[in-house]
Amino acid sequence: MAVRAAVAGASGYAGGEVLRLLLGHPGVEVGALTGNSNAGQRLGALQPHLAPLADRVLQETTAEALAGHDVVFLGLPHGQSAAVAQQLGDTVLVVDMGADFRLADAADWEKFYGSPHAGTWPYGLPELPGARAALKGSRRIAVPGCYPTAVSLALFPAYAAGLAENEAVITAASGTSGAGKAPKPHLLGSEVMGSMSPYGVGGIHRHTPEMIQNLSAAAGGRVTVSFTPTLAPMPRGILATCSARARPGVDAEAVRAAYEKTFAGEPFVRLLPEGQWPSTAAVYGSNTAQIQVALDEAAHRIIVISAIDNLTKGTAGGAVQSMNIALGLPEETGLPTVGVAP
Amino acid sequence: MAVRAAVAGASGYAGGEVLRLLLGHPGVEVGALTGNSNAGQRLGALQPHLAPLADRVLQETTAEALAGHDVVFLGLPHGQSAAVAQQLGDTVLVVDMGADFRLADAADWEKFYGSPHAGTWPYGLPELPGARAALKGSRRIAVPGCYPTAVSLALFPAYAAGLAENEAVITAASGTSGAGKAPKPHLLGSEVMGSMSPYGVGGIHRHTPEMIQNLSAAAGGRVTVSFTPTLAPMPRGILATCSARARPGVDAEAVRAAYEKTFAGEPFVRLLPEGQWPSTAAVYGSNTAQIQVALDEAAHRIIVISAIDNLTKGTAGGAVQSMNIALGLPEETGLPTVGVAP
Amino acid sequence: MAVRAAVAGASGYAGGEVLRLLLGHPGVEVGALTGNSNAGQRLGALQPHLAPLADRVLQETTAEALAGHDVVFLGLPHGQSAAVAQQLGDTVLVVDMGADFRLADAADWEKFYGSPHAGTWPYGLPELPGARAALKGSRRIAVPGCYPTAVSLALFPAYAAGLAENEAVITAASGTSGAGKAPKPHLLGSEVMGSMSPYGVGGIHRHTPEMIQNLSAAAGGRVTVSFTPTLAPMPRGILATCSARARPGVDAEAVRAAYEKTFAGEPFVRLLPEGQWPSTAAVYGSNTAQIQVALDEAAHRIIVISAIDNLTKGTAGGAVQSMNIALGLPEETGLPTVGVAP
Amino acid sequence: MAVRAAVAGASGYAGGEVLRLLLGHPGVEVGALTGNSNAGQRLGALQPHLAPLADRVLQETTAEALAGHDVVFLGLPHGQSAAVAQQLGDTVLVVDMGADFRLADAADWEKFYGSPHAGTWPYGLPELPGARAALKGSRRIAVPGCYPTAVSLALFPAYAAGLAENEAVITAASGTSGAGKAPKPHLLGSEVMGSMSPYGVGGIHRHTPEMIQNLSAAAGGRVTVSFTPTLAPMPRGILATCSARARPGVDAEAVRAAYEKTFAGEPFVRLLPEGQWPSTAAVYGSNTAQIQVALDEAAHRIIVISAIDNLTKGTAGGAVQSMNIALGLPEETGLPTVGVAP
Repeated sequence: MAVRAAVAGASGYAGGEVLRLLLGHPGVEVGALTGNSNAGQRLGALQPHLAPLADRVLQETTAEALAGHDVVFLGLPHGQSAAVAQQLGDTVLVVDMGADFRLADAADWEKFYGSPHAGTWPYGLPELPGARAALKGSRRIAVPGCYPTAVSLALFPAYAAGLAENEAVITAASGTSGAGKAPKPHLLGSEVMGSMSPYGVGGIHRHTPEMIQNLSAAAGGRVTVSFTPTLAPMPRGILATCSARARPGVDAEAVRAAYEKTFAGEPFVRLLPEGQWPSTAAVYGSNTAQIQVALDEAAHRIIVISAIDNLTKGTAGGAVQSMNIALGLPEETGLPTVGVAP
Repeated sequence: MAVRAAVAGASGYAGGEVLRLLLGHPGVEVGALTGNSNAGQRLGALQPHLAPLADRVLQETTAEALAGHDVVFLGLPHGQSAAVAQQLGDTVLVVDMGADFRLADAADWEKFYGSPHAGTWPYGLPELPGARAALKGSRRIAVPGCYPTAVSLALFPAYAAGLAENEAVITAASGTSGAGKAPKPHLLGSEVMGSMSPYGVGGIHRHTPEMIQNLSAAAGGRVTVSFTPTLAPMPRGILATCSARARPGVDAEAVRAAYEKTFAGEPFVRLLPEGQWPSTAAVYGSNTAQIQVALDEAAHRIIVISAIDNLTKGTAGGAVQSMNIALGLPEETGLPTVGVAP
Repeated sequence: MAVRAAVAGASGYAGGEVLRLLLGHPGVEVGALTGNSNAGQRLGALQPHLAPLADRVLQETTAEALAGHDVVFLGLPHGQSAAVAQQLGDTVLVVDMGADFRLADAADWEKFYGSPHAGTWPYGLPELPGARAALKGSRRIAVPGCYPTAVSLALFPAYAAGLAENEAVITAASGTSGAGKAPKPHLLGSEVMGSMSPYGVGGIHRHTPEMIQNLSAAAGGRVTVSFTPTLAPMPRGILATCSARARPGVDAEAVRAAYEKTFAGEPFVRLLPEGQWPSTAAVYGSNTAQIQVALDEAAHRIIVISAIDNLTKGTAGGAVQSMNIALGLPEETGLPTVGVAP
Repeated sequence: MAVRAAVAGASGYAGGEVLRLLLGHPGVEVGALTGNSNAGQRLGALQPHLAPLADRVLQETTAEALAGHDVVFLGLPHGQSAAVAQQLGDTVLVVDMGADFRLADAADWEKFYGSPHAGTWPYGLPELPGARAALKGSRRIAVPGCYPTAVSLALFPAYAAGLAENEAVITAASGTSGAGKAPKPHLLGSEVMGSMSPYGVGGIHRHTPEMIQNLSAAAGGRVTVSFTPTLAPMPRGILATCSARARPGVDAEAVRAAYEKTFAGEPFVRLLPEGQWPSTAAVYGSNTAQIQVALDEAAHRIIVISAIDNLTKGTAGGAVQSMNIALGLPEETGLPTVGVAP
């Protein structure tokens, strides 16, 4: 019998991507769709690519609307998930695509988000050590941020294998959908096409403590992260260029071996053959993360590049993958590994 | 038992898209992959988005390599399909994504393609009147051109219903993948980004006689087509702006009614609600055609806009849809109707 | 002594482009900059490409702020120009980049713009017959719309030479800056990149009566125009595909000869050599219009393609060109004819 | 009397950009244009944006063709400049936009370029300490690489002021024109649109030793550089994200002060006001470099972002700026500081 899933925030980019994936998931039936400012509108007018749901009408995000589902995906503004989750009860699987339950450290949360800490839920990046066990059977999932997904997948093997010093430098380029669907002047097509620009520079981006949390857990000690996000002229995709000083004596073979071992058997991480490099185009619309690694001999730094689709593996795909694990479904169900290219 | 399919021209854009779709088709198993100039290379190096086939190696396009399959998709340069098809025998389903067998009129073929006419196969645009019957059980399919797909879907209902004069004016914008993967200076990213440009202007584009053939069949008389293609700064998609003078007395209601009737029940054509217009983004990677129609009262012209993905509904999706019909599988099997957006 | 110019609406795209051009104009000094919602802000925060004016502060658009200038460029919402112009007095050259004074027919104005007709000013498309004489010495200029600029340049020679039937069919693709800087969801980069979409279909776009006005004047009789605009994934540029049935007996030589004669000596219109086609990339940032013409023999239609930069020749460049004429300066002063490519 | 300039490699991107700038330079007359594979073709067919030179015909690159000019710009493949320069004689100003004469260290040259070292010419990045003095009156100029321009401007002030440790980590995103005009599959529009991808990872990109040379000179000691270039879906522009550990005790005020002091009075470098960040769109087509700096307190790293147009400040603009200095013309002559945006 199909699992019945509701999506709160169905008019946004995360909500739309969850729906795209659920429409291809053989074990899920799409139930209520909610979205406050767009309540009463047809989904076809807001998400014209979701043809099979075009005539569905958005409801307001209330406990009543979301009641009676096995799974509820939350694509809400930061700070709103706790109240909704509480009303849904403990037997419903709540998958939060917002940030509210990602950070374990309340002080970090308050510093970067400026509001009281709501708590911590099992973290939906199954490839991290121990993550699958925590997700299995859970009825609460905190879906990682898109940048932390790309960065953690790229660097945790180096830290887990003791290859890197505890100081990472990261630059990532994101497609504009990562900035959401609320119209702002700097996100206009006229402004972003033909333009690369940074934002949140200097260690102030909210995804920084989440990266530190994940990499420090892998390293068994505090990792310093200098993270610079940039906005790229493309709708989707994250390309993360991550590096860390190699520990003394570490060579290219050791690095490659650690990555091959870590990702052997992972259905959604593809360590590329040597000499081939990731691109966001190759993972467009798929739940695959492409990874490649090199040792810069002169600078003695490990360089790891990862490419993901920020909306798929970086948000909604990670959410569905984690849902599968929580519900005991085969982890790959309903998740494309093939990108839409060119 | 799964149908076994080979793809000749697996390194090109049409071949890659067929493979993307076949990987999601529950009734098909991917067999031999061939490609002459790239024979011996790993598919992963040429089509990095096709992760599950990354380690497959391309063979040369020979009868031996293609033997032993139930279906063979041909993504070959014009003029090469006939020889290959002949060697494959009559019991194999040959789906030609090239132009060789699209035109019924040998003189048209020779005028526009400059080579002897190879013949005519059942035409793989199932939505056209009579097409499904011709495809059913056939072992040969001529997949339509991408522009003729977009244009014929847009205008055939007006001609079939007797609403339009036999003179159509069409401008279409295509993504660059329509121009293929062979590197040419004017197709460089540096040249196409930020640029719209026409080509094949003045009735000389090879897809023109194919449009005339389809629209004339619907009209029951020769339709004149003035067609101008343009290259748009996007990888995929065709937006066709099609118009024809309305016959005297035709009003907006009659036009809308004809389109609603024609496309009722079509799984891959979506006539949008009034007031909503097609976009190529909404059908990105899907086999859906979005259609909208209006009557320009002052000019008394019927304006029809269609949007398709040139590689999916316009090539490989149409090919798989037609294959399903030919093989007696449910027509929608393995074909996405949901676009990848934003 | 330099002409002193103020710009009302300096934070918008038209205003920004006028400033870009005026900064390179040897006879103009940039005076007051106004913009209501942004009054009090530094121009550098709003138009970061205008480096030399970065520290200028926007004022509110009042008669006081605009007083004391020789020229005032108005980049205001429709309907606001008349009141401002009246306050400026008759000796100031007012160059209106809005629509208010373009149409001669009050009924057309009211039908398409829904407000009372403000009047008619000399029309700033100098290449049209008689336009330069009307602009010379004028203290009021109505700058044409961007689409009417592209379309009128493309088709008026055919009508003036009596080559075309009075029925034109036009499809044009515009860069997103044509839609302005006010943030709206469908103009987000995430929505427009990778997408072509139409709007204002069916004869309802406001630029239609302006095209009819210009082409009818050239034809000496009412020309019917069926116009479909589309939004293209690029920041700037218009590619207009224009066609009209050729009159009986008209051949390709006659068409070419008419265009060569019309544009001989025009500094900003470049009729391309036969076989070469316009592109928006080639005129990016320049005041040049590229034109090419062909006769579709089978459909007996004249096909004319024009490419302009919608912000330069299509708005601010046309405005400066017309200003030069009005002030008695050499027409080409300060106007680039070289595009920024690739 | 105008300086007469020839351009070798006029059909390429660097050559085309030099011509665009020279056409707007009041002291230069454009002389011979050469280009081997395109010799005999009209420039209008190859560089359609250079309208005033459309009817010029390319010659072969020979000493005869280039003789009789005051300045010769070389846009040739690596390794070809020395032979041409030798034939031109010592009184002609030769401006090499290739790499041949950039590196002082012959071993570095041979390691990264694989050919014998041709020598070292005065380095055309006038903003570096001592560079203007070396350029003044010189008859040979080595124009810097595009990445080294962006990176050196970003980081040399930190090193010159003793603020940073001698270990820099740099990620840069470049528009596709940086890869040149030779058609290659991975540079097709279909491949690059919507895609970010790295290349030359692991310290192997040829611009790395040039960065090390410049930063080490500023630091007064060997600086290690870990450099990762990426290809971005835009035709022009470089956004460089550069960082280096701050020396102990360095604070944000000291960093800002050093940058303000360094760039005060520089006509082509714009240190943005605090809180505003560079974008490649803002410098499109201009010779301006936008710079911003921050101190990441937690990671104790200085983060500097620079944005340039790779073809203008990064190649041809830097070449013309250096030519102006060498010839004793005002440095800013003919060089736009205003970008073409949006």
